[in-house]
Amino acid sequence: MATVTLMTDRDANAIPAVKAVFDDIRAVRKTDFINNFWRGLAHDPAQLARIWEQVKAIMGTPGALDPLTRELIYIAVSTANGCSYCIHSHTAAARAKGMTDAQHAELVAIIGLAGQTNHLVTALQIQVDPEFQVK
Amino acid sequence: MATVTLMTDRDANAIPAVKAVFDDIRAVRKTDFINNFWRGLAHDPAQLARIWEQVKAIMGTPGALDPLTRELIYIAVSTANGCSYCIHSHTAAARAKGMTDAQHAELVAIIGLAGQTNHLVTALQIQVDPEFQVK
Amino acid sequence: MATVTLMTDRDANAIPAVKAVFDDIRAVRKTDFINNFWRGLAHDPAQLARIWEQVKAIMGTPGALDPLTRELIYIAVSTANGCSYCIHSHTAAARAKGMTDAQHAELVAIIGLAGQTNHLVTALQIQVDPEFQVK
Amino acid sequence: MATVTLMTDRDANAIPAVKAVFDDIRAVRKTDFINNFWRGLAHDPAQLARIWEQVKAIMGTPGALDPLTRELIYIAVSTANGCSYCIHSHTAAARAKGMTDAQHAELVAIIGLAGQTNHLVTALQIQVDPEFQVK
Amino acid sequence: MATVTLMTDRDANAIPAVKAVFDDIRAVRKTDFINNFWRGLAHDPAQLARIWEQVKAIMGTPGALDPLTRELIYIAVSTANGCSYCIHSHTAAARAKGMTDAQHAELVAIIGLAGQTNHLVTALQIQVDPEFQVK
Amino acid sequence: MATVTLMTDRDANAIPAVKAVFDDIRAVRKTDFINNFWRGLAHDPAQLARIWEQVKAIMGTPGALDPLTRELIYIAVSTANGCSYCIHSHTAAARAKGMTDAQHAELVAIIGLAGQTNHLVTALQIQVDPEFQVK
Repeated sequence: MATVTLMTDRDANAIPAVKAVFDDIRAVRKTDFINNFWRGLAHDPAQLARIWEQVKAIMGTPGALDPLTRELIYIAVSTANGCSYCIHSHTAAARAKGMTDAQHAELVAIIGLAGQTNHLVTALQIQVDPEFQVK
Repeated sequence: MATVTLMTDRDANAIPAVKAVFDDIRAVRKTDFINNFWRGLAHDPAQLARIWEQVKAIMGTPGALDPLTRELIYIAVSTANGCSYCIHSHTAAARAKGMTDAQHAELVAIIGLAGQTNHLVTALQIQVDPEFQVK
Repeated sequence: MATVTLMTDRDANAIPAVKAVFDDIRAVRKTDFINNFWRGLAHDPAQLARIWEQVKAIMGTPGALDPLTRELIYIAVSTANGCSYCIHSHTAAARAKGMTDAQHAELVAIIGLAGQTNHLVTALQIQVDPEFQVK
Repeated sequence: MATVTLMTDRDANAIPAVKAVFDDIRAVRKTDFINNFWRGLAHDPAQLARIWEQVKAIMGTPGALDPLTRELIYIAVSTANGCSYCIHSHTAAARAKGMTDAQHAELVAIIGLAGQTNHLVTALQIQVDPEFQVK
Repeated sequence: MATVTLMTDRDANAIPAVKAVFDDIRAVRKTDFINNFWRGLAHDPAQLARIWEQVKAIMGTPGALDPLTRELIYIAVSTANGCSYCIHSHTAAARAKGMTDAQHAELVAIIGLAGQTNHLVTALQIQVDPEFQVK
Repeated sequence: MATVTLMTDRDANAIPAVKAVFDDIRAVRKTDFINNFWRGLAHDPAQLARIWEQVKAIMGTPGALDPLTRELIYIAVSTANGCSYCIHSHTAAARAKGMTDAQHAELVAIIGLAGQTNHLVTALQIQVDPEFQVK
């Protein structure tokens, strides 16, 4: 079930622009495993490169948020958007970066609470307090 | 613009179950400020108490995630759900808990990237890799 | 703030296909008031007629659900979709059809609870029990 | 496919806080069946109890809306949120509470119409009529 | 997995109002194939007819947009709404109307970019420039 | 109402990385006007550059889809995601690229129809026909 085929390594190796990205994914992640997302994207090599460059820059560069926190945020967005693949892949990534069961349980509880209060606020159409607005 | 009125302090003080929650919010948060969300919820005192108890338990109890990380997750869900009030109130809360401009910028970039890859995965209908599934 | 103008009565009266729908809305609803939704749709008279015919058939014909229940369902969908206009207009419609404050409070609480459990189920990616599937 | 395991009865029985909730679900619902949602939540016993208490309070207490109407609202929210599990489980629950095929068909038609008009209003960015605003 | 059964041709042929729509779908599309969507809708013959009439009027009538562009728009909405069935069926329809792999790749890239900037704008709560408003 | 300030030209001119992007936006679009989205993003110059580069590559490079069709797709996604700012800005962009009122009306009608059938399919949980799956 996909609207494109998932590119095999044999086909990827025959397209230099795809091979370069796949090689870099393997080098950066220190694994031979290329997950289906990249294999689906590979039919558009320019887009494949654009997305991978962003993932490296936004998720992989040292900065103000630690790598695990970044994955928790990713899971939160993916859950609210109902992206099953993304929830699975980033939950696995978070676990690989040390997420404990207790952290996962708290993440899920916060996501649920936010889902609830988002719906309550929207149903009641609460207006933003002036105190919350940036001057 | 709201589908209910926002309860004033005078009305809240006249309903013991509402006054008890408002008093507790003020005590826990060490401020006299009660934001509009609680004033909109107050017409259903049982629901007001349920939501406040959950907020205290999920957002306010020491646990496996620190208070700022919890707010970042809350903002992420609220953004994906398009809840303007919630984004404003939890961004203000995150700043009050020490979120720096650099952390906010990274949060926003991750939310945007997740939004993009969620849409790509969904458009391509990528199937979950067996490697990401819990046994 | 709109991406089209809202058609005035003077302009509507000059287009027979629009005038016919506006007249019918006024006759069915027993009021001279035409709300902005119809004035925005009116630039496409065929679409205006299609939507109004559906609203009459689905919301206005006696059937298995009573008129107030239909409005509660409409508010629920509109809230989950974050349609501010629709929440305001159908909450007003529900009140006009007799919705009490207690019913509104219960509606909002159910919407919030569903929002919460929807998010929990999605974060956990719970699989459908065979017991819930139609044979 | 889930991001947590589904807790078996044997494991649930070994954790008193989980066993207490599972026992109560069985007693309240008068069935031995515990659906997957609760088995997924059970890894966080405090959250399991919080959600179950809310479900009982909001869905199971006599009030201003009858039990079937509550389920219809739940299905409406779950559909707009795209929660497949929730749609299946609450459609089954609605049928168990007496939902007829005619009521289901009307529910589905209203959900579809609301989905359509929500999208039309949003595309046109229609502003809320003053008549719909709470004073 | 469905909340209704999918109506077989034998059952459809026994209900004149359903048979009439199925016959028309087959005639208009010049194929014997009736996809599952119509088989699920068929339990409500009036709704089946309403939806089919709209599909013919909006998707099948010559107008200002060509048939392929209409399908691309349909895929875009269905992706943002996370409707897996709709993405599959309209991607197939777009291919049948001549969508090339290059067009599909561009469509997917635009959907992804819009998903990203939608999330960025919402997280930042950017106000609409006066220049973008209809006078 | 925004969670960040909108950067003025004076501040932008003082940050070379921001000035470079603003200059390029002005050159590419042949206008002095910089809309609020870029002014909100400018606090994160690397992200500002990343998004602008993508917009140029995906929306501005000649390819398989014409510029107006790309804007229609953008509006469709933004509507389903409920991004008011994005709907306003891309509707204005589409008009600037020649979108007629008739094309806009058809776009809106398709978005509405897709919203409706997306909801119907989801409520009914229709399974994907094997005919729609990529081999």
